[in-house]
Amino acid sequence: MQKNVDVLIIGGSAAGIVAASTGKAFYPSKSFLIVRREAEAVVPCGIPYIYGTLESISQNIIPNAHIEQAGVELFIDEVVAVDCSAKVATTAGGTRITFDKLVFATGSMPKVPSWLKGTGLDNVFTIPKDRDYLEHLRIRLEQCTNIVIIGGGFIGVEIADELRKKGKRITLVEVLPHLLQAAFDPDLSVKVEEILAKEGITLRTGEKVQELAGETTVSHVLLESGDRLDADAVILATGYAPNVELARNAGVKISELGAIRVDEYMRTENKDVFAIGDCAEKFSFITRIAKGLMLAATACSEARIAGMNLYGLSRLRTFSGTISIFSTAIGGTTFAAAGVTEHLALERGFDVISASAEGIDKHPKSLPGTSSQFVKLIVNRESGLVLGGAVVGGVSAGELINVIGVIIENKMTIHEVLTLQVGTHPLLTGPPTGYPLIKAAEAVVKKLRLSR
Amino acid sequence: MQKNVDVLIIGGSAAGIVAASTGKAFYPSKSFLIVRREAEAVVPCGIPYIYGTLESISQNIIPNAHIEQAGVELFIDEVVAVDCSAKVATTAGGTRITFDKLVFATGSMPKVPSWLKGTGLDNVFTIPKDRDYLEHLRIRLEQCTNIVIIGGGFIGVEIADELRKKGKRITLVEVLPHLLQAAFDPDLSVKVEEILAKEGITLRTGEKVQELAGETTVSHVLLESGDRLDADAVILATGYAPNVELARNAGVKISELGAIRVDEYMRTENKDVFAIGDCAEKFSFITRIAKGLMLAATACSEARIAGMNLYGLSRLRTFSGTISIFSTAIGGTTFAAAGVTEHLALERGFDVISASAEGIDKHPKSLPGTSSQFVKLIVNRESGLVLGGAVVGGVSAGELINVIGVIIENKMTIHEVLTLQVGTHPLLTGPPTGYPLIKAAEAVVKKLRLSR
Repeated sequence: MQKNVDVLIIGGSAAGIVAASTGKAFYPSKSFLIVRREAEAVVPCGIPYIYGTLESISQNIIPNAHIEQAGVELFIDEVVAVDCSAKVATTAGGTRITFDKLVFATGSMPKVPSWLKGTGLDNVFTIPKDRDYLEHLRIRLEQCTNIVIIGGGFIGVEIADELRKKGKRITLVEVLPHLLQAAFDPDLSVKVEEILAKEGITLRTGEKVQELAGETTVSHVLLESGDRLDADAVILATGYAPNVELARNAGVKISELGAIRVDEYMRTENKDVFAIGDCAEKFSFITRIAKGLMLAATACSEARIAGMNLYGLSRLRTFSGTISIFSTAIGGTTFAAAGVTEHLALERGFDVISASAEGIDKHPKSLPGTSSQFVKLIVNRESGLVLGGAVVGGVSAGELINVIGVIIENKMTIHEVLTLQVGTHPLLTGPPTGYPLIKAAEAVVKKLRLSR
Repeated sequence: MQKNVDVLIIGGSAAGIVAASTGKAFYPSKSFLIVRREAEAVVPCGIPYIYGTLESISQNIIPNAHIEQAGVELFIDEVVAVDCSAKVATTAGGTRITFDKLVFATGSMPKVPSWLKGTGLDNVFTIPKDRDYLEHLRIRLEQCTNIVIIGGGFIGVEIADELRKKGKRITLVEVLPHLLQAAFDPDLSVKVEEILAKEGITLRTGEKVQELAGETTVSHVLLESGDRLDADAVILATGYAPNVELARNAGVKISELGAIRVDEYMRTENKDVFAIGDCAEKFSFITRIAKGLMLAATACSEARIAGMNLYGLSRLRTFSGTISIFSTAIGGTTFAAAGVTEHLALERGFDVISASAEGIDKHPKSLPGTSSQFVKLIVNRESGLVLGGAVVGGVSAGELINVIGVIIENKMTIHEVLTLQVGTHPLLTGPPTGYPLIKAAEAVVKKLRLSR
C-alpha cells in the first residue's frame, strides 16, 4: 500500500495528537497523518488512577474522535524505517508513506536497571504507555496482597497512593534520601512522606535494591541493607528513556542524554524533520542546561510550537526551555512546583533566597472544605527574579502553581509579585489580606532587606 | 487622652489592616495605630455566606490577633476630625492623636437610591460592613418567607443564592438587562441566570422598582411595569459609595466619582497622607479611566503599595490601575473574569476579537468531580494584547482567573499565551492536550488569521 501525505507524525499519544491538530489548524490545506502502533492511546498522566480511583483502562483513553474532528487521519501501524532524504517511511504492515514534513513523537519506554537481578521473573512489571499491558497489570494486581514499588518519583508515589485505596500492602523503595526529590525540596517531600506513612504505606527511602528473588514468580525483594521485603508483585517505576531507535537509524542526531536533538522551533538539523515530547531533547528555562524531564504538559507545549512552525518559522513561537511545572495530589493534598527547586538552584550556582508562607485556600476558614495552603518562592538574590516556587494545598493549588509558572515565564521580579493583583473569593481562594503567594513574596523581601 | 504615633490608619477592615502590617514590616522602627469604630471587623467578601453556608456572623470575623501579631496597635474609637497640616486627629471619645503619616482606609457605605419611596419602612435592609447590623439582619430574615433583593450585582446574587439554601422564596430585581453586567459579558450572565432560575429564584431583570410599600413594615415591592411583589423583607443591594466625609472635611481632594484622589503610590496631594481601598479613587489598568470598583483584593493590593511607600517612594512599587479580577461561585459553579469585558472594550473604542473554548477541569473526564471549564479571551486586534478573560468552571477556576490576571498584568500577547507553559494533572486541571485557556487562545488566533 502507498500513502502520500504532507505531514507525517510518528506516534499518536498527547504530543503527536497536539502537533497534528495544531498544524492542521494553522495549515488547513495540508494533509496530516498520524501513524500509531496502538489502536487506543492511554491518557499518560492518568495511568496511576486506573489502579484505584477509576474502574478500568477504558476510562483512561484519549478519544480517537478528537483526531478525526481535527481533520487528521489516524493510521494504526508501526513505522519501522524512515528515509529522511527520500522522505519516505515504511511500516511493519508494508505501507510506504511519502511525506513533506516529518514529526517524531515516539515517546519513551520504561527503563529497567540492567544491573538488577530478577527483573525477568513473573509478576515484575513496568509502567509502559500500553493499554493492554496496563489493563493486564490491573487484573493481576487484584490477586496480590504485598506489592513492592521501586522508585519514588511521581509514577511510583501516585500508584502507591492509588493501590493502597484497594487495601494492598505497599512498600515503596527509593534510593535517594527523599521521595520526589527531582521535583521538590525536602520540605515538601517530607510532607508527602508523612501522608503516605499515615496511610499505611511502608517507605524505604535511602535504600538500594539488590535483587528481585523468587522461583519463576517474584516472592521477595532483597535490599542492600540486608532486609528482605515480601512481594507478590514488584512494580519498577525507575524512570523512562526516550524512544529514539527509529530516529537514530534514520540518521537523526541524538543528544548525550539520548534524546533527539532539536532547536527552539522543535526542529532537528534537517529543516523538514521535527521532534517533540519525551523523545525530544529538553533544556531548562532557568539553568539553560539539558534535562531529562518528561511531562505531558511540556510535550504538548512543544507539540504546539512544532505544529505552528511546520511551514514557516515564527520568531514569536519558540520553546524557550522547560519551566518544569509539576503537580500531583497525594492522599487528597495537592503538591506542586514550578521552575527550579532550591537545592537545584544552589547546585547550579545561583545565589538564592527562599521563603514561604502558610495560609488557607478559602476564607474565612470556617467555610466547609477549607484546606491549608503553603507557598514557597525561590528568588535569585542579585536579580530579584523568581526562579522557582512550590505550593501545598487543596485542589486550587493545581492552578495556583500555574500563576507561579506565568510569573517565572514573564521573568517577574519578587518586587512585582509583592504588588501583584489577584482576584479572591471566600469559596475559591485565600483571603485578600493574607493571600499566601503574596505573603511568601513579603517573606522573601524581608529576608532580602535583612541580608543587605 | 493623647496618643502620639508615626503612622495613623483610619479604618481597620481589610485595607487598613494590610496597609498597617505591610508598613510595619517595611519600617519596623515606626509605630502604627489603627483606629476603628467596630470592635470586630467582618470579612467583607464573606458577608453573603452568613445568610446560608455559615452559622452566624461570629464565623466571619477578621481576627484582631493578626493586627497585634504584626506589631500594630488597634484602638476602638471613631476619628471625627483630622487636621492634616497640624497632623492631629480627634476621636469621638475625645482622644487626640498626633501622627507623621496618615492613611485613610474609611471604606464605603451602602447607597440607598434617594428617589425610591419606602426605604424607611421596617424590614428594608442594606448590607453595610457592620457586625451587629448584619447579625440582626440574619436573625430577622429567619422569620421571613418572601424576600425581595434589589440589585443584581455580586452582593445581590450571592445573598440570593445563600438565602435560597435556607428555603426562602427569593425575587431578585435588576434594572439592567442582565445580572452582574458590570463584571461579565451577557454570555456569562446568562449562565448565572440559568442556575439561579433553576434553583427556584425568581429573576426580574430589566425591571425598575417604583416603590417599596407597606404600613410600618414593608409588605410589597411595586415595579414600574405595574407588577407587585410580595415581600416580608427587602434587601437593597444597590451599590456602595466611598466614605469620604472625614477626608473632605480635612480638605483632601475628592474626585468626580466621589473618591479620595490618589496617585500611583496611593498618595493624596499631601505627601504625608495616603488613601486606599473603597474610599480611594480607582482607574482601570486597561481603559486608563476612573472607575467605581470596590473589591477587597484591589483594596489589599493598594494597601500594600501604600504601606511600602510610606517613608520613601519606590518606583518599583506602584499601582498601575486595577485589573478588576472578579470571582464568585453560584450554585456550586465558579464564574470569574479579569480585565475588561468585551462590551466595555468595544464601548471604550478597542477593536477586539474574542473567542472561547470549553473543556474539562480534570482529566480524563471519568474522574469523579470533573466539571466543565469554559474560558473566554478578549484580545486587542491591532496589538494582540490580552485585554480580558473569563472562566466558568469548578473550584480551580478561582485561581485560573489569576493566571489570566497575570497574563494581563504582564501585557502578554495572544501569541505568547499560545505557547504558554502550564502544569497539568489528572486530579487538578484540564488535560495538557486540551487545556481550555490555550484552546481559547488558539480560537482567537484562528479568528485573527481568518480576518486578515
